Amino acid sequence: MAEIPVLENILKANEELANQVRRRLTAAGVVAFNFIGSPGAGKTALLERTIPVLRADFRIAVIEADCATSRDAQRVQALNVAVIQINTGKGCHVPAHLILQALDGFALDETDLLFIENVGNLVCPSELDIGETAKIAVLSTAEGDDKPQKYPMLFRQCHAVVLNKIDLIPHTDFALERFESDLRAINTQVPLFAVSCRTNEGIAVWVEWLRNRFPPARLR
Amino acid sequence: MAEIPVLENILKANEELANQVRRRLTAAGVVAFNFIGSPGAGKTALLERTIPVLRADFRIAVIEADCATSRDAQRVQALNVAVIQINTGKGCHVPAHLILQALDGFALDETDLLFIENVGNLVCPSELDIGETAKIAVLSTAEGDDKPQKYPMLFRQCHAVVLNKIDLIPHTDFALERFESDLRAINTQVPLFAVSCRTNEGIAVWVEWLRNRFPPARLR
Repeated sequence: MAEIPVLENILKANEELANQVRRRLTAAGVVAFNFIGSPGAGKTALLERTIPVLRADFRIAVIEADCATSRDAQRVQALNVAVIQINTGKGCHVPAHLILQALDGFALDETDLLFIENVGNLVCPSELDIGETAKIAVLSTAEGDDKPQKYPMLFRQCHAVVLNKIDLIPHTDFALERFESDLRAINTQVPLFAVSCRTNEGIAVWVEWLRNRFPPARLR
Repeated sequence: MAEIPVLENILKANEELANQVRRRLTAAGVVAFNFIGSPGAGKTALLERTIPVLRADFRIAVIEADCATSRDAQRVQALNVAVIQINTGKGCHVPAHLILQALDGFALDETDLLFIENVGNLVCPSELDIGETAKIAVLSTAEGDDKPQKYPMLFRQCHAVVLNKIDLIPHTDFALERFESDLRAINTQVPLFAVSCRTNEGIAVWVEWLRNRFPPARLR
């Protein structure tokens, strides 16, 4: 299989760039979150609920990554935070070198939290380091309660799981106990937050955890 | 960028294997469908609704691709059709060489239709030829009505779009007109089937189209 060493080279090059991202963020005292989930899991909606709660205490920047359009950046811009849209074209994830470029667009020394919304994809972004402090898995109840074991990579590695659209549970076959037992078979310890970005249910608990678990350098 | 020529080599190698798949299927008179969509869009549920309607007239085989588990194959096996599960591990799509191997597991000369359910992913599988006759895009209303333009590759290339979970529309912000206008900006002609695999709404129209548009060689 001739492609394996080459793939390793690409991953190694990305890792070096991810380390550059990490060094710049650490030097500036920025905590960075990499939000990963399928298209439509509600990653942007989660930012729309999370940012207004944190904005009073933290200086926030956002990177939006999508194959095409700047729709998500436009939604986030309405929250009055610094936002940069990355379009990956055919790319199924955002690589570290694009994050590194995007950092030039922010006043990092005046930033506490950086939220990065990855391309909608439960598979590819989970393996790729982009210099983030923590990976946050976002999943919608409409995707079904059997996803952790079918797509284990992300659920093994993430620092938190946000289960969105719990308001839809009564209209689907989703069973929270099945989801939890599926998740625990992969990851016994990761915090699970059941939320509805539509009704705001569960958002306060999730944001409180984020605030306490990952305080920016300025507040430590 | 050292990786570009290498990536081209990988794609070229895949293309050659896809052509081998296509030649074997054509020789045996098999029509093959590549179902592509996010995790939880309802690809397996669509097969569970489609296969029972077609089984009386067609000899059906199924390939299920997932990163891990054989859950989908188990669900399809309950329909009494030949099924093979492929686990791609960290792989974000099923490549042609795994399809080629899987074909050895079927009596192709006694098969009319081959349904291939790709790994749940709206991005990566859309560019990769696996020797299929047609690509079918599957999307759930819970994913939102803005997906065609955000993930245009699949919607540009597919032979049909199946919009699943229309029973959830009253409980979401999904607007069918917005989805259609978003889709038409990318692809003016592709047939759109609005269905609910939960209630069976729209399934008959979709299956009738499939039957007439892609008759297997034996019935032409």
